[in-house]
Amino acid sequence: MIQIEGGVCAAKGFAAAGVAAGIKKENKKDMALVYSQVPAVSAGVFTTNLVKAFCVQRNRELVKAGHPIQAFVANSGCANACTGEEGRKNNQTEAEHMAKALGIEPEAVLTAATGVIGAQLPMEAVLSGTELLAQNQDASKEAAFSAATAIMTTDTVPKQAAVEFMLGGKTVHIGGMVKGSGMIHPNMATMLAFITTDAAICKELLQEALLSCVQESFNRISVDGDTSTNDMALVMANGLAENPEIIGKGEDYEAFREALRTVTLSLAKDMVRDGEGASKLIEFIVEGAHSNEDAVTLANSVITSNLVKTAFFGEDANWGRVLAALGYSGAPFDPNNVSITFTSAAGSIQLMDHGTPINFDEEKAAKILAEREVTVLAELFQGEGSATAWGSDLTYEYVRINGDYRS
Amino acid sequence: MIQIEGGVCAAKGFAAAGVAAGIKKENKKDMALVYSQVPAVSAGVFTTNLVKAFCVQRNRELVKAGHPIQAFVANSGCANACTGEEGRKNNQTEAEHMAKALGIEPEAVLTAATGVIGAQLPMEAVLSGTELLAQNQDASKEAAFSAATAIMTTDTVPKQAAVEFMLGGKTVHIGGMVKGSGMIHPNMATMLAFITTDAAICKELLQEALLSCVQESFNRISVDGDTSTNDMALVMANGLAENPEIIGKGEDYEAFREALRTVTLSLAKDMVRDGEGASKLIEFIVEGAHSNEDAVTLANSVITSNLVKTAFFGEDANWGRVLAALGYSGAPFDPNNVSITFTSAAGSIQLMDHGTPINFDEEKAAKILAEREVTVLAELFQGEGSATAWGSDLTYEYVRINGDYRS
Repeated sequence: MIQIEGGVCAAKGFAAAGVAAGIKKENKKDMALVYSQVPAVSAGVFTTNLVKAFCVQRNRELVKAGHPIQAFVANSGCANACTGEEGRKNNQTEAEHMAKALGIEPEAVLTAATGVIGAQLPMEAVLSGTELLAQNQDASKEAAFSAATAIMTTDTVPKQAAVEFMLGGKTVHIGGMVKGSGMIHPNMATMLAFITTDAAICKELLQEALLSCVQESFNRISVDGDTSTNDMALVMANGLAENPEIIGKGEDYEAFREALRTVTLSLAKDMVRDGEGASKLIEFIVEGAHSNEDAVTLANSVITSNLVKTAFFGEDANWGRVLAALGYSGAPFDPNNVSITFTSAAGSIQLMDHGTPINFDEEKAAKILAEREVTVLAELFQGEGSATAWGSDLTYEYVRINGDYRS
Repeated sequence: MIQIEGGVCAAKGFAAAGVAAGIKKENKKDMALVYSQVPAVSAGVFTTNLVKAFCVQRNRELVKAGHPIQAFVANSGCANACTGEEGRKNNQTEAEHMAKALGIEPEAVLTAATGVIGAQLPMEAVLSGTELLAQNQDASKEAAFSAATAIMTTDTVPKQAAVEFMLGGKTVHIGGMVKGSGMIHPNMATMLAFITTDAAICKELLQEALLSCVQESFNRISVDGDTSTNDMALVMANGLAENPEIIGKGEDYEAFREALRTVTLSLAKDMVRDGEGASKLIEFIVEGAHSNEDAVTLANSVITSNLVKTAFFGEDANWGRVLAALGYSGAPFDPNNVSITFTSAAGSIQLMDHGTPINFDEEKAAKILAEREVTVLAELFQGEGSATAWGSDLTYEYVRINGDYRS
């Protein structure tokens, strides 16, 4: 498997576009299209928030019904959530216009939106946007970049990833793009992921692979259940790589899943790096928990702690906050038998050894914490459970961005 | 019932002191004593964090065993948590020295600590502090204020409350003091509450009253299970008011509980107002939930949402974030049938009516949100469940304080 360029256009038969339809101010790109030349098998993972945007509700039904999908259309600048009957109709109308412009069925179009909740879509802009998208789409790297730009809200950079690998003697590609990026409760700011592949794979296994990869990537930069109204991860698999269709679990399925995980994990880490106001990427590893589930609970508890996040912003080796966040996670462990180690490009330092604090060199710790990427290892010595999660620090910039988001 | 002055010294037979023992720098007060002339019945509510400071472990055992209590001694500047066997011994030694200085048994002394985790107590300072406390204690308002000052960490003001009421023809008092004040996950910064009363009440009902009052006050500015290593609320009841001892539930118990709740609620709100960097007190009321338990879950979900908190800091009427936080709380409701209203001294404005967003006057909303205290009402129309919770906004100052706490 190798990493390649091209994002959502890396796989055979996919085109993309990003245009400025006039939803956002200042002629910023605000609508994106991902299009497959041929009908594709699709899968999706959707927000678990009780409050679901209309696009989430509609996509979920279409994906569940197994309708062949050929296009994702997404807009930034307006979430079209909590907008009543008018909002529901607008979402349907958008899908219909996009379909017409592409010459396909409305049921082959999935929609997505991100931005402020409660405002109606400016439909004149949206509908002219669908036509612009259909006219401008092509299979170039530039088009993929343009689409990745058009889904941004408070993101500061477009986020793409793609890989190439072999399946049954054929070259297969998986590519994707995401937008973040509220990194404290990341799912509270809408997270959208669009993934494309030319692999041939049945719907059931595509869904299973997507769900497991989301759990090990996007859900490791967040807490289960802490979700926005519009979150979703969608994938289209159009089969143009002509590999023998994956219809059972085995070597091919595992290779596909591993490639998909590489893409989603790369995108997830990019989301943290570009988290709102983030200045650091903190990788948090739990080893020796009673179970993997416990390890996930413990790791997520630490990466979502505001006190841990502000300590990393302050480059303060405050391991006590790490231990306290482990302690209130709800997962059992023996607090008197924990080892904690911080590592970065500047070196490694142990702060606690089997429950006993170590008198550490503050100067060395400060150097390690001054790096942009820091790994924290917590060893619990209870069993074989392990997990890794990723978080950002909490900065002044986060407060500035979120104190002034709607305007 | 009337509110009075005097904090922990408001009740008959209680004295207090606050001294600078040298644990903190710059000669700041860092040790506090609350002393009862006569042995008192005690009750306590302790952190649920797996990682418990030694003072929490020791107090819990003594309170559970029903040992008569005569003194609380607390220090700020060092939490004495995660400090191994040396830390455990230091905690015991502190209790023994305090007891000796007061001429009472060590088992009549409860200890408390707040500050950085993992550092050992400077025992020379602590032990001389116990003697200073014993020498300086008296029953004045000034002494109570001094004690409330000595337990502060990042708190900016001492926080006290007291009430006077009648029980069985006798005048009874309840007073208290608290320290906060990390208001995002308030229990993650240590919360300490010390309460005194001259009421005569049996241990079991004192414990029950304390627990229920904590649940309706301190636990409504936080999330259950999200706790620091040192959190506790302690109460001593010394019976000197000479009311007929409360040994069963009835009018007297209810009057006592109501008075205790008035004290804890006043202290809880003061903690939010003085939350780290807080510029606003947000009161969040849920009405019409399926049950009171659901209402508590929903209200706590909103007051702990960073996105809601930053929106209030930005004085932005972003009701969508409120709805989203309700949606991921885990408690069921119909998102298409919610009404949301913001109220403050500057007026009241409805933003959503039975699920439909209202085109509101932004200027009026801005005036309402510019006030220091804002009430948010969410009506769910599902049942009779209701709850109120209190939170602060999230500000630049919070990040500054917590990015630089340890140093």
